[in-house]
Parts: sequence; C-alpha cells; structure tokens
Amino acid sequence: MIINIKPITLVLGILLATLGCAMMVPSLYELYYFDPNWSVFAISGLFTLFIGVTLAFASRGKVEFLSIKEAFLITVLSWVVLTTFGAIPLYLSTLNISYTDAFFETMSGITTTGSTVLSDLDEMSGGILLWRSLLQWLGGIGIIVMALAVLPMLQVGGMQIFRAESFDTAGKILPKATDIAGYISLLYIILTVLCIAAYYMAGMNIFDAVNHALTTIATGGFSTHDSSMGFFDDQLIETICIVGMILGSLPFGLFLIALNGNPMALLKNSQIHWFLGALAIFTFMAWRSQAVGGFEPGSLQLRDAAFNIVSIMTGTGYATVDYSQWSNFAVTLFFIVMFVGGCAGSTSCGIKIFRFQVIYISVKQRLFGFLYPNGTYLPRYEGKRMADDVPYAVMSFLFLFLFFFCLISMILSLQGYDILTAMSATGTAMANVGPGLGNIVGPAGNFAPLQDSTKWLLSFAMLLGRLELFPILVIFLPTFWRD
Amino acid sequence: MIINIKPITLVLGILLATLGCAMMVPSLYELYYFDPNWSVFAISGLFTLFIGVTLAFASRGKVEFLSIKEAFLITVLSWVVLTTFGAIPLYLSTLNISYTDAFFETMSGITTTGSTVLSDLDEMSGGILLWRSLLQWLGGIGIIVMALAVLPMLQVGGMQIFRAESFDTAGKILPKATDIAGYISLLYIILTVLCIAAYYMAGMNIFDAVNHALTTIATGGFSTHDSSMGFFDDQLIETICIVGMILGSLPFGLFLIALNGNPMALLKNSQIHWFLGALAIFTFMAWRSQAVGGFEPGSLQLRDAAFNIVSIMTGTGYATVDYSQWSNFAVTLFFIVMFVGGCAGSTSCGIKIFRFQVIYISVKQRLFGFLYPNGTYLPRYEGKRMADDVPYAVMSFLFLFLFFFCLISMILSLQGYDILTAMSATGTAMANVGPGLGNIVGPAGNFAPLQDSTKWLLSFAMLLGRLELFPILVIFLPTFWRD
Repeated sequence: MIINIKPITLVLGILLATLGCAMMVPSLYELYYFDPNWSVFAISGLFTLFIGVTLAFASRGKVEFLSIKEAFLITVLSWVVLTTFGAIPLYLSTLNISYTDAFFETMSGITTTGSTVLSDLDEMSGGILLWRSLLQWLGGIGIIVMALAVLPMLQVGGMQIFRAESFDTAGKILPKATDIAGYISLLYIILTVLCIAAYYMAGMNIFDAVNHALTTIATGGFSTHDSSMGFFDDQLIETICIVGMILGSLPFGLFLIALNGNPMALLKNSQIHWFLGALAIFTFMAWRSQAVGGFEPGSLQLRDAAFNIVSIMTGTGYATVDYSQWSNFAVTLFFIVMFVGGCAGSTSCGIKIFRFQVIYISVKQRLFGFLYPNGTYLPRYEGKRMADDVPYAVMSFLFLFLFFFCLISMILSLQGYDILTAMSATGTAMANVGPGLGNIVGPAGNFAPLQDSTKWLLSFAMLLGRLELFPILVIFLPTFWRD
Repeated sequence: MIINIKPITLVLGILLATLGCAMMVPSLYELYYFDPNWSVFAISGLFTLFIGVTLAFASRGKVEFLSIKEAFLITVLSWVVLTTFGAIPLYLSTLNISYTDAFFETMSGITTTGSTVLSDLDEMSGGILLWRSLLQWLGGIGIIVMALAVLPMLQVGGMQIFRAESFDTAGKILPKATDIAGYISLLYIILTVLCIAAYYMAGMNIFDAVNHALTTIATGGFSTHDSSMGFFDDQLIETICIVGMILGSLPFGLFLIALNGNPMALLKNSQIHWFLGALAIFTFMAWRSQAVGGFEPGSLQLRDAAFNIVSIMTGTGYATVDYSQWSNFAVTLFFIVMFVGGCAGSTSCGIKIFRFQVIYISVKQRLFGFLYPNGTYLPRYEGKRMADDVPYAVMSFLFLFLFFFCLISMILSLQGYDILTAMSATGTAMANVGPGLGNIVGPAGNFAPLQDSTKWLLSFAMLLGRLELFPILVIFLPTFWRD
C-alpha cells in the first residue's frame, strides 16, 4: 500500500486557503479601527491563502480512493499545519511574543483548550482577540466533522460505536459525509448566531458577545477579559453561557436527527441522560464543597458551582471565581471532573461520556458473569447490541490516556514543577479544558511563566487529546511507513 | 441457589483457630521476658481459638459442593473476621490505643500494606512487634493461596489467565489445590527461614532478623524501628532485603514448577521480565531524580533509589530515606510507581504486571487493526492464545480501581485532607503499599493523626485492593442475595 501524497496535499491546501480567508476577518476589523495589526493579519492571510491555493492546485485531479493511512495522515497533518500557520499573525503582531508562545496559544485555540499565555486581554487589540476566538470556533467545527466523518471510520477509541448512528439512523435523508458536514456547519453557525444575540440582549457589547459566543459553542473558553466570564458578574450571562456550553457538548449528529422530525432522539439518548446527570451530581458536590471550606452555601454559591462545573466538565475553561480556594474537596473534585468531558460528536473533549457508558456496561457484564458463569449477557448500547471490539477499543483508549498522562506528568515534574502543577497541566491539556490547578496553571494563573519546552510538550498533549490519541500514535509506528 | 452457611463457618472456624494458635507465639515470647502483655495475648488467643473450634465443630460434616456464592462469601468474610479478632490483643495491650487504631493496624498488617498508626516502635514490647510481623506473614501466605486457588476460579480481574498455569503446567505432579497450598506454604517457610539467616548473618540481632524476614517475604513492610530499614543503614542488609522483596513479588506457582525440574519456567516467564525491567527503569529514574533536586547522584544515591523503588513497587513499604525530599520529579515518580505492583500469585499487590501486559497486548492488537482492518491478529500471552474475556476482565478491574480511587480520594478530601494526602493515602491503601506522600501519610509521617472515620475508610480500601475489588463488590450486589 503506497501512500498517495496528492489527496493529502489537496485537503491541506483547501484547509490552509480557508484559514487564510479567516485571517481577513481580524484584518478588516483592525483596519476599521486603524490598528497597526491589520497589515499583520492581511499579510499572514494572503501568505497562507497563497500557500493553500498553490498546494490545492498542484494536487488537483480526481481522487479515486482514500486509504486508511492517508486518512490518518490527513487527520494529524491538518491540525499541525493549521496551527503552524495560524500562529503566524500572533507571532508577527504587536504582542511581541515568541513563536513558542504563539504556537502554544494557537494550538490551545484550535484544539478548543483555552489555556492562555497572554495577559492584559482587556487592553489588547481587538483583532488579536477576535483571531483567538475564531481559532477556537474553527477548531470546534473541525472536531465535530472529524468526530462524525473520520474517527468512526478509523475506529478510533471505540468511536465505531457511532458509525451506524451518524450515517444510518437518519435514513436516506443525509446519506453522504460531505452533506453531513454541510448541515452540521449550518447548525453550528445558527447556534453561534443565537448565542451572539442572547449575549448581546443580556447586556454584553457586540464585540464581547461575538467573541464569547464563538468560544462558548466551541467549548473553547478564550475570553476577551483577564477575569474571564467573572468580568461580567451577571447571572443571566452565566446562564446563557451554561446553556451554550451544554449545547456545544451534545452530540451534533442527534441535533440533525431531531431537526429531521425526530426530536425524541435527543430526549431518549442515554448518553445525554448520563451527561446531564453527571453535571447535576458534580454541581451539587461543588456547591457543598464550599460549605466544607467554611462558606455558607446559598444561591450565589450554587451559581458559582454550576457555572464552573459546566465550564470544566465540558472542557470550556471559563472561570468566574478561583474555585481552588473553596476547600481541599473542591480541588480534588475539579481535578477529577476535568477528565470527564462531554458527549461524542460534540466540540467537547476529555474521556467522554460514552466511554464511561461502555465501561459501565462491561463491568455489569463481568459482575453478572461472576454470579452466573453459565448465563449469557448480551451488552447493549442505546438499544443496539454492542460489538465485541468496542470495549477493547475503549480500554485501549483509556489505558493510553493514562499512560501518556503519567508520562507527560513525569516529564513536567522532571522539569521542576510540583506534582499538582505537573499533573493538572497535563490533564487540562490532554482533556482540552483550559485551567489546571496550582499557582501557575490554576484558574487564577497564566501559562506564560512555563518553560518553552513545557509549552511545546503541552501543545503536543493538547493535540494528542484532541485527536483521541490513536491517529498520532499510529503514524509513529514503524509499520505505518512500511509497505 | 441457596447459600449454605456450613462450609463458610467451617472455613472461618479453622482460620480463627489457626489465628488463635498464632497469638500464642507473642504470648510465649512475652512470658519469657516477663512482659505484662503475655496474658493479653494468651487470653485473646484462647478466646479466638475457642470461638474458632466451636464454629468448626458446629459446622463439621462432609462438604459436597462449594458454590460460587459461598466461595465469594468465604473470601470476603475470612479477611474481615480475622482482622476483627486479630485486633483484639493490640486493643487490650499496654499500647492503650482505640479499637479503631487496633483494627487499622491489623488490617494494614494482614493485607501486607504496612501503614502504621504506632510510633516509638524501638521501645515497644517485643510481643506486639512480633504480632504485627506475624499478621503480615500470615496475610502474605493467605493471599498467595487465595491468588492461586480461589481468584482464578472466580475469574477475578483477569486472573482466569492463570487458571491453567497454576494447576496444569506442572503436569500430574501437583494435581490438587490443597496439595498446592501445602507446597506453597512449605516454600514460603523455607524462604522466610533463609531470609532470617541472611539478616542474622548480616548483623541484625535475632529478634530483628525474624521480624524483618517475616515482613520482607510477605512484602508487608512493618519494622521494629521507627526509622524502618533506615535504622540499620547497612548496604548488605538492604541488598538482602531487596532480594527478599523481589522473591516475594514473583509468581509462587512458578517457583514450584521450577523446583519440579523446570527452572527455565522462571527464566522464560515474560511477566518476570517485565517486572524486573520496570524495576530497573524506575530505579534509574529515581536515581536521576536526586540529580534534579541538586544532589550529586553517586553509588549511595543509587542504593537509596534501588531500595526505595523496590520497596514501593512491590508494595512492601520499608523506607530508608524520605524520598519525597529529593525533588518534585521523585514525588510524581513514587506516586505512579505505587500503583504498579508485582507479579500475580505473589504477596505483592497493586495493579500487577500481568494486567499491564494484557493491556499492552490489547493496545497492540488495536493499533494493528487500524492499519490492517481486514487482517487477523491473535493475542497471545506467555505463548498461549489469550481468551477473549481476559482483556474485558482486566479493563473492568482497572476501571473499578480508578473509580474507587477517585471516590475514596474525594471522601478523604471532603474530610479536609489536601489532594496529595487524600490521593496518595487512598492509593497506598488500595495498592497495599504502606507510605503515601505528604506530611501525614508520607514516608516520614505516621497515620495516627488521621480521623477515625478516615482510618475505617482506609481499612476498607486496603481490603478492597487486597481482594482485587470484585469479591467485595459482588456480595454488595442485590442480585447476590436473591435466589
């Protein structure tokens, strides 16, 4: 099986051209406000567009067949290449930051992580803020399309469980992957516009409304203020944000099915039940965790608990308060919640709810097997028989996640960081959340003081988590490159 | 299926009678030295013996058949009942401790954990020290017999992989479980005597030699000195100890096969290769971790690294230095090493090497599957085809381990402990290691200041880990008690 370079460069070219066009948005914005960064975005955009168009043209022609290896290479390379180019305007801008910082910020954006090395956001040029938000928004839609169209086919981490769902259950109405991508993108745009409108009506200015809507639906978490959503200190805005983050964490494929005349598909989905149930339980715990720390838990504390739990569990990463100050219990709770994640086929990351469901089904099967060694228990997921390879795949995912979590944590502590900083920074990067714990990477900290090598390592961890580990590992296998 | 109480009470009776007899050992020792505790041990011993004999006699008769449910109940109840009675002499002794402390210390002993609430060991009455060591020694042989004879039949946590090995590969020479238990016990006694002799010849007095040999082969870790093995500060003693801890962590079933004329069984065993390989890698890392902290790593540092890594990974828990002072890297390293464990069918605990092997095989199978979706890859373990249910079982074990680790850590931090204390105390209890990290439960600390409820919770965690989770969970299932 020889790897054909043409389809790879074709896709990369198209994506780069799109990214180049996207850079025109902050360029026009800055031009309107006479900000010197307009030319940075314009030049970066034209350069990216030029490279993209050239690549695409050079690779034009009919693609007959896309092999598995080519699909893996496209998946990994597109995120790396887009990050490399997306960092250019940040590097060249008036921010005066190193390329390491620009790359970290872009990777954090495009993977919808939301960890930042930038501060003084409130005084920052609007184009740069807009670019950060756009990166997260583009990353968000990118990941949904990937999760629906690419990962199930590649059978990554148990995602094959959704192969049937994403393409079949909607009947013949949405038969092709490209059509699905189109409908999903439309839905994504509509949700974003609704979110902009809601934020605006709740009192945000239009710039804040646009930026926060882009990063809310993408469960990204970049803000235009150093104090994040805490800047507004407004119950209505936080409620809108909670709704937006939850919508961004639901399975987008099901939205389509619901809109196609089957709204029960959303209501009856067990993954959504588990997701909302977990949010409720963790919110209650976070609320009580303030009582442990000596605060009287009232309605304000409940609001703080709900907002920050939703923000961390969906992997968004906005903060309104420094929850690590609540109590020791809150620290442990948020550390654990960080890994949970949202539903498959959404913009959220982490281990994801469906994997916990698969594991739960397998554990139930085992316990049943203990008591009735001769009985038969057929595992079912969402009413359908679960294929035997799904628990294997989930187990492999979980173990690799743990393995890389331990490995990267060890390297970080080897670089001198304490165990809480090392482990929470690794966890927050791999689960694409945003804030970790401790003084540097915690909700009140900033990633800027980290060493350059740490920033590169965490960028790698973000990509590893965002692509669900396997695509990256597969291309590092020697057999991948053998015939 | 009605649960027959008779075989359960019969086994409990026999075990209690044995425990009662064992209490006579410290009683005689104290009598010889005119220590007032002799009567405490004598009375506790006679009482335990009386209860045991009464139970056994009341349940005598031919046991035709042992059902799965009865086997589970025997497994769980025997550890709980033995701990309850084993704590009596500690509670009544001149130590003047609460029953909570006595129960915690006994559970820590019998599960070969080695966490202690006692201090001033150097001035303590010899009988009490001897009783602690005996508890670990009895717990060690108990767990080997259980791992070889009971857990594989109950298919706990993937242990069915050893069902064939423990009973078949030795041919017809060792056909029955009771015979195996006899041979294993003999081997265990021989190893202990050799260890006593080695310690004695290396310069320990006979009392220290006996106590430390009992807790070395059992990978328990109770010492007769507050400063643990660091008290002797002797390279030869530490080397003997390392060899003893490693021997205690190897699969005892393979020792029998080797002694039956097939020594290659030990040399060719992949689990042993992985185990020794992991020890070597972690020792190297621990050695280098001292350089990170600014210490010049020489041969003394290598000795410290080797001793403490072997002690923690095998779940023994002796300490010679406070390794948490070496560097941040050392803290993270020891936190992770704590969970690894030794080989199946040994006295060591933790996740255990064979589970990592099964996971590795499964991950390899998955990665292969990505690249060759139409190929077939038959997973093999130790040269034999691995049954399909093994990875399932291992996954269920790993997930339940993680789940209870998170749950118990959260409860501990709810009780007010910081995240490092909460997580490392939970980990060290579930993996039956001994020391955790931080001021209270760390290698230089003591478990005494913990709250009573915490001590009960950690006692439960030790039992949960020692019995590989499933037996305890199964008897808590409502269906277990239904017909």
